[in-house]
Amino acid sequence: MKASIMTIGTEILVGSIINTHGRYLSQKLSDLGVHVVRHVSVRDDLESMEQALRDELIYADLVIICGGLGPTEDDATKQSVAKVLGRDIYLHEGEYKKLLARFEKNNRAMTANNKHQAEVIDGAELLINHWGIAPGEVLEYENKKLILLPGPPKELEPMVEAYLEDIIHNDSEIIIHSLNVAGLGESRVEDRMRKLNLETSEISLNTFAKFYDTEIKIIAEGKDRLALQNQVDTIVHKLYDAFEGYIYSEGNQSLAETLVDRLRAQHLTISFAESITGGKLASMITAVPHASEVLQESYVTYSNTAKHKILGVDSKTLQTYGAVSQETAEAMVRGLQAITTSTIHVATTGEAGPEPAEKEVGTVYISYGMGDIITTEEHKFNGSRTEIQQRVCDTILLTLILMLRR
Amino acid sequence: MKASIMTIGTEILVGSIINTHGRYLSQKLSDLGVHVVRHVSVRDDLESMEQALRDELIYADLVIICGGLGPTEDDATKQSVAKVLGRDIYLHEGEYKKLLARFEKNNRAMTANNKHQAEVIDGAELLINHWGIAPGEVLEYENKKLILLPGPPKELEPMVEAYLEDIIHNDSEIIIHSLNVAGLGESRVEDRMRKLNLETSEISLNTFAKFYDTEIKIIAEGKDRLALQNQVDTIVHKLYDAFEGYIYSEGNQSLAETLVDRLRAQHLTISFAESITGGKLASMITAVPHASEVLQESYVTYSNTAKHKILGVDSKTLQTYGAVSQETAEAMVRGLQAITTSTIHVATTGEAGPEPAEKEVGTVYISYGMGDIITTEEHKFNGSRTEIQQRVCDTILLTLILMLRR
Repeated sequence: MKASIMTIGTEILVGSIINTHGRYLSQKLSDLGVHVVRHVSVRDDLESMEQALRDELIYADLVIICGGLGPTEDDATKQSVAKVLGRDIYLHEGEYKKLLARFEKNNRAMTANNKHQAEVIDGAELLINHWGIAPGEVLEYENKKLILLPGPPKELEPMVEAYLEDIIHNDSEIIIHSLNVAGLGESRVEDRMRKLNLETSEISLNTFAKFYDTEIKIIAEGKDRLALQNQVDTIVHKLYDAFEGYIYSEGNQSLAETLVDRLRAQHLTISFAESITGGKLASMITAVPHASEVLQESYVTYSNTAKHKILGVDSKTLQTYGAVSQETAEAMVRGLQAITTSTIHVATTGEAGPEPAEKEVGTVYISYGMGDIITTEEHKFNGSRTEIQQRVCDTILLTLILMLRR
Repeated sequence: MKASIMTIGTEILVGSIINTHGRYLSQKLSDLGVHVVRHVSVRDDLESMEQALRDELIYADLVIICGGLGPTEDDATKQSVAKVLGRDIYLHEGEYKKLLARFEKNNRAMTANNKHQAEVIDGAELLINHWGIAPGEVLEYENKKLILLPGPPKELEPMVEAYLEDIIHNDSEIIIHSLNVAGLGESRVEDRMRKLNLETSEISLNTFAKFYDTEIKIIAEGKDRLALQNQVDTIVHKLYDAFEGYIYSEGNQSLAETLVDRLRAQHLTISFAESITGGKLASMITAVPHASEVLQESYVTYSNTAKHKILGVDSKTLQTYGAVSQETAEAMVRGLQAITTSTIHVATTGEAGPEPAEKEVGTVYISYGMGDIITTEEHKFNGSRTEIQQRVCDTILLTLILMLRR
């Protein structure tokens, strides 16, 4: 089954918001064995929407239209779909009553625009919206399927979780398995992978470059789930052989999730003394469930005073070598070791920009403390202030993951 | 001028990556007065790309194609464009020599695939890529313009900065001005705005709902910049009158940027004692340039031990009321006041989930300390662990911004 995801909204085309529905629905549909062939975003005028829908009905068997079901003037999805399909729109009694009750409960008068939210296209199956007002709709048209969903992610996403699988009824099985490879560039990963000749009619392999690593994604599609799983397992084994030492995690696990897993498995705890990263390292770790098992306390020592007061960094060290120096990074990690009982300590100091203070923007010192062993690295990172901060964090997470390799 | 942004890449359609180019280019093009009418993402096979390009050349005067210029098999943008335009591809001597030199310098053998990166479509103007290997191209075709750009953002974005304005030569002026409104829902903002009847043939107004606030975006397009600016200024005044007390910032300023601005202007400093937010508050502040003027130190006190040891929260308080309680939040902020010289102190404690420990997931206590005045609020947030953490941070930033209203 081929699918197209249409997103309605001028705010996407003027760049006010990013289209997150494309990715979200692509993942959900891929997991259901649906081949997403196009994403299209158009402005919310009737003509653009009608033209786009006519096109997408040529390219896809399933068209999912996101947005344009709300009460404002710009919400014209139903009119355009009804026009293209040659259908009428009627006021749905049940939905209208629910809408009236809602306005009554909130003591607000209902405007004519609001009433449109209770209108439904002839022949549509209704998808009750428990998370907002406008219901979704499923339509059949010339052997094609259309799904209309409300635009706000907090309505669209639970509706997809609740209804999509039942609507699709795909009879082919699909298995997706990812391996994350660090330490080799994407083109070397792809070369080495292609030479293994692992693809079959049922199995495709792709590489996706990320900032620090490359994801190898295995997609298997067929009728027999067990046979597919066996094929995938064999391929995973071959890839582990071919990329020995480079595969650091599987699946959609982020760097932070992988690190928290390894720390938990090895009963280790971690604390940070963050200057350039300003709390980002701690927040990446604490964003992961069960972070409390590995992080108890952490420090943002942004100023020289804080480095001295909290971590006991000698004022002479700060004066002689500067806050952005190997010596300060090392003194920070030693000071951190003195005040916490964690097993692993990391200190960061550097120039995030935009203007340099002591050193060139992008100069960063990272000090790792594991008991008596202290390692301090100098790095040069490119990018904006937040990119530099992100890259420092990713570097540290990946370094620790590789250090804690089982 | 109408533009379409085409993004090439199966990884977008299987949901491996999000299409950030659409938003980035939409913003850049809107600022240059170009009307972006469509975003389209297609898989990287020749047929899909050719069909899509034929369609987009109907809808737009300018088609920007992102990606598919690299060395792998999937990189087929040039072939598909050449086919649709009926042109040949030739090996560009200068680019080929640069490529050879690059491989020589890195002591690597060049493969046949790599050579494709030095190929150019007949009649194209070359856009030198100083940030990667594959050059961009500009093509004229039946009064339409095509721009081919490499897919990696770290190459595409600097190329857009360097070349786009010169390629576009738009002779109409455009002014974009945004006002951010907090404390009213989007539909009330839109109603009130529409009643003012501010739109003209040159000026359009739109509202964009964000999590906590609503952006009113004024887009003015015309020939006379000064006259446009006068119109925009008048509209801004009228909006300030109509939304008195609700407009908290202008432009694309984030909550963190707005807060850092206000703190700097009022010579205030801030420190956090973060439990549920785990460092995110500090990292949001330190992501803003000049954060060092407002944040010197901050603490992640994730465990009970850390709350006691660092902030001096009484063990009895933790035992009697629990870590997630009004009493603990207040004791945290008092402890924070005792150890820092900052003027504003904020403490967070709560249940981020996924499993509840003491209280229901989403229960959060935030304590604000401004000298002797301590205010503690209880909140209930919905969402995933990271959404709850983000919402706590946004709530705190907005609360502080409104507190520091001039």
